[in-house]
Amino acid sequence: MAAECAALERLRGIRGKMEAYGLDAFIVTNGDPNGGEYPAEHWKARSWLSGFTGSNGTLVVTRSEAALWTDGRYYLQAESQLSGSTITLMRGGEPDTPEFPEWIAERLNAKDGVSANGDTAAKGAASETDGGAAAGGVATAAATGSSAPAEWKVGVNGRVTPCATYSDLTKAFAGRGIALVIEHDPVGELWTEGRPELPRDPIFRHGPRYAGAAAAEKLEDVRGELRRRDATCALISGLDDIAWLFNIRGGDVPNLPVAYAFALVTGSSAELYIDLAKVPDEVAESLRAEGVAVVSRDELAGRVAALGGGERLAYDPHKLNFWLLSRAPAEVRRIPSDEPTLRLKAVKNDAEIRNHRECQARDGAAMVRFLIWLEREAAKPQPTVNEWDAALALRRFRSEQPENRGESFPSIVGYGPHGAMMHYAPDSTGGARIENRGLMVVDSGGQYLGGTTDITRTIVFRETTAEERRDFTLTLKAHISLASSRFLYGAAGPHIDAFARKVMWDHGMDYKSGTGHGIGSFLSVHEGPHSISLRAGSLVRLEENMFVSIEPGVYRDGKHGVRIENLARIREDFTNEFGRFLCFEILSFCPISLAGVEPDMLDGAEKVWLNDYHRAVYDTVAPLLGPDEREWLKNATRPLL
Amino acid sequence: MAAECAALERLRGIRGKMEAYGLDAFIVTNGDPNGGEYPAEHWKARSWLSGFTGSNGTLVVTRSEAALWTDGRYYLQAESQLSGSTITLMRGGEPDTPEFPEWIAERLNAKDGVSANGDTAAKGAASETDGGAAAGGVATAAATGSSAPAEWKVGVNGRVTPCATYSDLTKAFAGRGIALVIEHDPVGELWTEGRPELPRDPIFRHGPRYAGAAAAEKLEDVRGELRRRDATCALISGLDDIAWLFNIRGGDVPNLPVAYAFALVTGSSAELYIDLAKVPDEVAESLRAEGVAVVSRDELAGRVAALGGGERLAYDPHKLNFWLLSRAPAEVRRIPSDEPTLRLKAVKNDAEIRNHRECQARDGAAMVRFLIWLEREAAKPQPTVNEWDAALALRRFRSEQPENRGESFPSIVGYGPHGAMMHYAPDSTGGARIENRGLMVVDSGGQYLGGTTDITRTIVFRETTAEERRDFTLTLKAHISLASSRFLYGAAGPHIDAFARKVMWDHGMDYKSGTGHGIGSFLSVHEGPHSISLRAGSLVRLEENMFVSIEPGVYRDGKHGVRIENLARIREDFTNEFGRFLCFEILSFCPISLAGVEPDMLDGAEKVWLNDYHRAVYDTVAPLLGPDEREWLKNATRPLL
Repeated sequence: MAAECAALERLRGIRGKMEAYGLDAFIVTNGDPNGGEYPAEHWKARSWLSGFTGSNGTLVVTRSEAALWTDGRYYLQAESQLSGSTITLMRGGEPDTPEFPEWIAERLNAKDGVSANGDTAAKGAASETDGGAAAGGVATAAATGSSAPAEWKVGVNGRVTPCATYSDLTKAFAGRGIALVIEHDPVGELWTEGRPELPRDPIFRHGPRYAGAAAAEKLEDVRGELRRRDATCALISGLDDIAWLFNIRGGDVPNLPVAYAFALVTGSSAELYIDLAKVPDEVAESLRAEGVAVVSRDELAGRVAALGGGERLAYDPHKLNFWLLSRAPAEVRRIPSDEPTLRLKAVKNDAEIRNHRECQARDGAAMVRFLIWLEREAAKPQPTVNEWDAALALRRFRSEQPENRGESFPSIVGYGPHGAMMHYAPDSTGGARIENRGLMVVDSGGQYLGGTTDITRTIVFRETTAEERRDFTLTLKAHISLASSRFLYGAAGPHIDAFARKVMWDHGMDYKSGTGHGIGSFLSVHEGPHSISLRAGSLVRLEENMFVSIEPGVYRDGKHGVRIENLARIREDFTNEFGRFLCFEILSFCPISLAGVEPDMLDGAEKVWLNDYHRAVYDTVAPLLGPDEREWLKNATRPLL
Repeated sequence: MAAECAALERLRGIRGKMEAYGLDAFIVTNGDPNGGEYPAEHWKARSWLSGFTGSNGTLVVTRSEAALWTDGRYYLQAESQLSGSTITLMRGGEPDTPEFPEWIAERLNAKDGVSANGDTAAKGAASETDGGAAAGGVATAAATGSSAPAEWKVGVNGRVTPCATYSDLTKAFAGRGIALVIEHDPVGELWTEGRPELPRDPIFRHGPRYAGAAAAEKLEDVRGELRRRDATCALISGLDDIAWLFNIRGGDVPNLPVAYAFALVTGSSAELYIDLAKVPDEVAESLRAEGVAVVSRDELAGRVAALGGGERLAYDPHKLNFWLLSRAPAEVRRIPSDEPTLRLKAVKNDAEIRNHRECQARDGAAMVRFLIWLEREAAKPQPTVNEWDAALALRRFRSEQPENRGESFPSIVGYGPHGAMMHYAPDSTGGARIENRGLMVVDSGGQYLGGTTDITRTIVFRETTAEERRDFTLTLKAHISLASSRFLYGAAGPHIDAFARKVMWDHGMDYKSGTGHGIGSFLSVHEGPHSISLRAGSLVRLEENMFVSIEPGVYRDGKHGVRIENLARIREDFTNEFGRFLCFEILSFCPISLAGVEPDMLDGAEKVWLNDYHRAVYDTVAPLLGPDEREWLKNATRPLL
């Protein structure tokens, strides 16, 4: 069955279920119960229903229409994947695009929440905590502010909907006669054939040699965070937070070595709620020895419902699903906050730093072998490899490195115009054939027992245009500007994002993405709370020993993309009478293609940075290579004069 | 009576009153009923009681101690003015300094709000709106969360305490057995002799020729803002907001041409509450002709108390005093938000821009005459002028310009080490004598019917050290870096602050202030909502036709200060496929001392900027000068090669 036919058929099925449940609209995401960034295949309801596989997207189905919201990274991909599906692409973030709740209200002809005669409920009346009272699973948003009866019902699956999303929807629908219904899962009812099973990979311990601290130590720090939140307990949903806290790893999510679970931490206890079939006896035993109770996942809702009235429960409203929170008795005080593990996990300890550096040398060796392989393939008189071949080769080179545990995300291998699609990834059908001209963006990373890597290099083939080299060099300048910067302690990501972006702005250009993100230790390739972007949400002070990526770029629709990404550790530079200054230690080691550089566009300091970096690449990676490879690397890292 | 004796005597008096009212601590600020940045002398209770005259300071008096919190700008000044007063200086913002409510709780031995046994109320329980119910004027903070009876009473004058401060105090004292009492004004009772009268200057209209829009037009825009806030009415406290909205000006506040008043705007009415003695008949008449009712200030509390239960009242919690808000019936929905006038006022219209440019030429001419005068005085074999003489001369030169209405703030004239005190201002006792060496920071501005100016030049005398010239040149580089920058529409102050600050950070330096602030049109020299600083609160998108200052600096305690400040208009640069780009049009015209510049530290682009700027200064200001002055300006603006 062709993709577009599948989407039409499935939409018909959903509309049948909606009719049966009396729903006027239904909202479908790829959300999982834990608010994860990379849900297991089992949870990708929106991808299944719409055919659009990008990581960010919300599908809304009404009785007669369907529309999908995604962001600038995915416009091109969504356009192509939605073609023929009758689903309208909504370009989220553009000024003329309504938010999806707005759109739903309009489609239902719901009256405006802010009407001239003032008879409606105010927006913002509902708080994140008020949902807890609606334990019945149906929240009549209209009832929170106005006396208007609910005229329409909009559904969303509460078990995979974060509390914050629930709260936003409640606010958006307030006073418009729209009731939000969270109990139905029509996609789950229809998606029976071919739906991937819930993952069942066994978990394993990630011992102190890698983690640098025992679970018992981490629990003490978490309890300190609870006191700071004035909480008596925390329900932790973040899969990487749980893995970090208990020093466990699993295989439930592609590319992310975690297991579906929840954690409940109190002042005196720590409970891991998990499918017990995933927990080998010796793991359960070693966890118990550290004071962690291992409990069946099935008992969690009951445990939450039995919380005492005096408890003050901390939870991350962007992760915990609303259905689970609504199990808690109304007397339990809700304390929405980020996970108590979040900041602790972000600041790496000495063992994690040491292990990460070792992984990076090995990752660099894999990258160098890949670059050599690619150069040879592209130089053949009739090149035959395509993007998918390149992704497979890269995966193979990484897998040959000690302690590699796969990739940290599906490799982005974007040749030519595909490089302009920030999150394009080829699939097994092959993707574009690679010829010996133009640029190719290769953004990839590895999982190693000792750490997680993430690196982007833009491959510069034999023939390039002046515009391609100019864009490459500007990207390099932007990268160097941030990588070589110094900043006062107290600065946050938004304060230094423009150190890279200014190079683009000066040239009347911009990139529609942040400049950098945090990264885990054998965990998630995207890790908070910090990031380097213009977003207000990333106004978290940058701390020494946080890891962060530096990845400015240029994206020209239909032409090419450039991105140069290294990971870096934030380290202290010095302290003087003006304050304490931080800077970056670059952690990634792989040559930056000199063929892309217009030397005249670099100033002296930039050339020094590039040459110093390339010397470090050679010194770090060469010992792991064979003689011919070493020769290749010597040339690739030659000084630019 | 010496200053220190006065403080001791007054503290004794306050403690007597505290005892009479059963207060264990009393908090004293310079606040006025409108939360103004520049309160009239009548309201400066903290200055009177402590002797410290800086613009930012909170004094706390307990039965046995007194302490004053201020920020980094004022450490040096406060140290000197508090000497001998028994008042302890608390350096706010430094990591070891407790917040003053924390300190009060500690001094009273109040139990910690976040105790280990969990028997206390949670912080953050109180919301800004809950105060409205405590209409009796006494809020027992302890009652909001815990059953502990109030063991201590802390007083603050509710009539000059913004709602947000009240709310913060309530939260900080929650669960610690501390009751907050807002009804007493012991300072007012003691400060009878010599207390400046409430101002009574007549108001006048600031017509469309200057304002560019009639009050009726502005009211329509404000009503749009009310709808956006889902409010039915707004109680506006901001004195400059009220002046802007009704196109009136007054003389109640030094340097700020506004009148004490409140405004109540509903969907169909606009009421100005003011001391009617200040309103000349023709002004009242012209306001009425525009649909504005002029009502006695005495009727405001009654009007608020009579608001209907269905009203939704918008107010700025950082400005409106809590006492007045607490008059409103409990059924009136509170909508804390910024003033509905704030963003409207910040984006200047064509008439305001045109008028401002004219003022700037005149202000530049006054500055040039001042610079010439100063150069001559300092060059005398035995210079006799001091900082105060310089401030007076500058005021005189400004006053000679057409349509000048005084200064926009007391001139900062800081010679030598005084320049390191960011907000130092000499008083009539004279200040330092000026010799022909080193640096002097002169930060000043004028009020003109057509606009408000604010400019800083650092005077470079004949003999300077290499460090002084280096600091001067670094400041100039930082200024140019921001002034010549281009940024994408959507960026806010914190995103571009570091364009200036990076120059300092690169050299291991920093300045303890923001980089820029908004400014009014014949209104306040500091105007929101935008600013250019690292503060999260300034994450307001920069819009075309906002005005902003650009003022990086170097401050070396005990040595010297440098600051170079121009005002700028945000203007569109161009729009292309990457987005819409904004940049700055510099509005201030006055030479930057070439004697301070180390030419080798400037790159080619920086020299071009400086030379272009100086050419514009000459072209703009020379026509307003006499022949000798023009000659001087020609030389001062000569190109740097």
